[in-house]
Amino acid sequence: MTQTPRYTPLVQSLPATVPFVGPETAERASGHPFTARLGANESAFGPSPRAITAMAAAAREVWMYGDPENHDLRVALAAHHGVTPDHIVVGEGIDGLLGYLVRLVVEPGDAVVTSGGAYPTFNFHVAGYGGVLHKVPYTGNHEDPEALLARASEVQPKLLYIANPDNPMGSHHPGAVIADMVTRLPEGVLMVLDEAYIDLAPPGTEAQIDADDPRVIRFRTFSKGYGMAGLRVGYAIAAPGLISAFNKVRNHFGMGRIAQAGALAALADQDWLAHVRTEVSAARARLADIARANGLTSLPSATNFLTIDCGANGDFARAVVRELAARGVFIRMPFVAPHDRCIRVSCGPATMLETFAAALPEALAAARG
Amino acid sequence: MTQTPRYTPLVQSLPATVPFVGPETAERASGHPFTARLGANESAFGPSPRAITAMAAAAREVWMYGDPENHDLRVALAAHHGVTPDHIVVGEGIDGLLGYLVRLVVEPGDAVVTSGGAYPTFNFHVAGYGGVLHKVPYTGNHEDPEALLARASEVQPKLLYIANPDNPMGSHHPGAVIADMVTRLPEGVLMVLDEAYIDLAPPGTEAQIDADDPRVIRFRTFSKGYGMAGLRVGYAIAAPGLISAFNKVRNHFGMGRIAQAGALAALADQDWLAHVRTEVSAARARLADIARANGLTSLPSATNFLTIDCGANGDFARAVVRELAARGVFIRMPFVAPHDRCIRVSCGPATMLETFAAALPEALAAARG
Repeated sequence: MTQTPRYTPLVQSLPATVPFVGPETAERASGHPFTARLGANESAFGPSPRAITAMAAAAREVWMYGDPENHDLRVALAAHHGVTPDHIVVGEGIDGLLGYLVRLVVEPGDAVVTSGGAYPTFNFHVAGYGGVLHKVPYTGNHEDPEALLARASEVQPKLLYIANPDNPMGSHHPGAVIADMVTRLPEGVLMVLDEAYIDLAPPGTEAQIDADDPRVIRFRTFSKGYGMAGLRVGYAIAAPGLISAFNKVRNHFGMGRIAQAGALAALADQDWLAHVRTEVSAARARLADIARANGLTSLPSATNFLTIDCGANGDFARAVVRELAARGVFIRMPFVAPHDRCIRVSCGPATMLETFAAALPEALAAARG
Repeated sequence: MTQTPRYTPLVQSLPATVPFVGPETAERASGHPFTARLGANESAFGPSPRAITAMAAAAREVWMYGDPENHDLRVALAAHHGVTPDHIVVGEGIDGLLGYLVRLVVEPGDAVVTSGGAYPTFNFHVAGYGGVLHKVPYTGNHEDPEALLARASEVQPKLLYIANPDNPMGSHHPGAVIADMVTRLPEGVLMVLDEAYIDLAPPGTEAQIDADDPRVIRFRTFSKGYGMAGLRVGYAIAAPGLISAFNKVRNHFGMGRIAQAGALAALADQDWLAHVRTEVSAARARLADIARANGLTSLPSATNFLTIDCGANGDFARAVVRELAARGVFIRMPFVAPHDRCIRVSCGPATMLETFAAALPEALAAARG
């Protein structure tokens, strides 16, 4: 008897994975909400008050579909970046846009290059379209441009992924290093430049790349610096030919009315973003102090999180994460060795950081057994 | 020289279509906003006031990602429908969920059956994954269950699409007719039952189908009766095996915080839905009066729109749509003959309907002239 539905062979081969388990899942299991939500690199400093007002106003108008062209937001983003609206596509977070991009170029068996331990949701999409992932190791705590380029020369991938700044290590390359990589890409390779954390990075991290260069697509988001992870608005900047190809596959009405209004207002409030940058900087310093006070070293961060080396192996760091969770503190950690010696703590307001500071010594002691 | 990026052959063959052009595009072109927005079957009666309050409150918490399991909303929907949360997947509107479903089952060359003139966004997804659409004609103003089943027997499709009630004709079949279709599906065929308009349909339209039946997936939305098209929340009810397959491909964090909160509050306010049903019923009657006063006949409607036969061919109806737009009234019309003799006018508050009533005689005269 034929099974119904008849899934594609590719789908049959896929696991029903979830790249990240949400903190709500743990909260439901324990029956206790986290008191410090510092695991998803959300911005507990919140969104711009002007964005909150815009979203609340848009809630009354939510009976209308959002503009499927995302016109006003694209015009504003274009002005912000000094490009044209034809260089910009808006979508359901970077996650959603990465899915569309992979669909546009990856067929079963196609090679894709990334770093072992880099963003798993990108890998989820590549696997989901049957692509073959080739992973190169980090050099220390940095993604390795030379190793990525060398592997690209070997396997001629359709996509080469790099995040700058990096997640989960918080490291970064100067923009000039990234721009140099572009000039050295093997023919036919598209660089996927994930700049989710660029708003929190030091000056000079943003690569100078011609928006008409067909070899690069860069991704930005309102989830991190702008503090609107739960709104689901990301965008990509690329040459108009590639941008228009998204129209072949995207969910045209996927960006809702509140999402577009909120992002537009947030973009207009650059003062708030500057305020968040100041808060993030202070929070990074405080987190580094907390690490030091517990005999741990932290890594330099160009992001809104701090990666802390727990000085032992992955089992130990996983125990620390677990013990912190038991004490109401939600954090995450890198997935692969040797990075999984570390924990990753998001920046947040002082009250959350002090909850972490109070829980960490106990969690370390419990993890040490 | 290799072109970058290297699109898949399937993507290269796809047009950069937009299934529907938004009214904002026309407004930008004309420089005048529509005074009566009656084209997208949105609910200008608005969402539940309780949902508006919930969305405004959630806007302050939008720095947090939404729960990737959509747990609370799925639990509430399960209770509402008398199924379990494992029977429900929530996603970025029915459009987004249809895309995931097609991806799960359709490979290039796979057959899919639908009706000529039925929902074009479903066709967009099928074409987007290389499926081959087999279209049967409506019988009069109804999708034709017998013809759909007969074609399914011939081509053994992976999917058979039917909407009940139907868009764009507004017709419906009794639920028993749909339930009977399920029992007669050829082996291996999954019925895609689009019930976007079911909240506005007469009693008995909802088919009694066991949620564990692997032959059917039914789609519902908060865009129509609940008045939240711009929030982008749809859901599907199906057997747990199929529901869990969505986890292989979906954008896990695609449902934002405001979207989940708004849908949850809207679902809890069934009184508002009952109020909208009353308003829709009155608006349908008023629209039918307006049609009659202009010498036109309207079709029976089980939806939140009225389909009006303009009594001539598609060119004439297209001219009526154009002339109404020039007078500030946004409506749409069926795409294919012979349905394109009609226009399709959404229900709305009295002020919008009276704007339509005032513009229609002039538009008809201009179209005739």
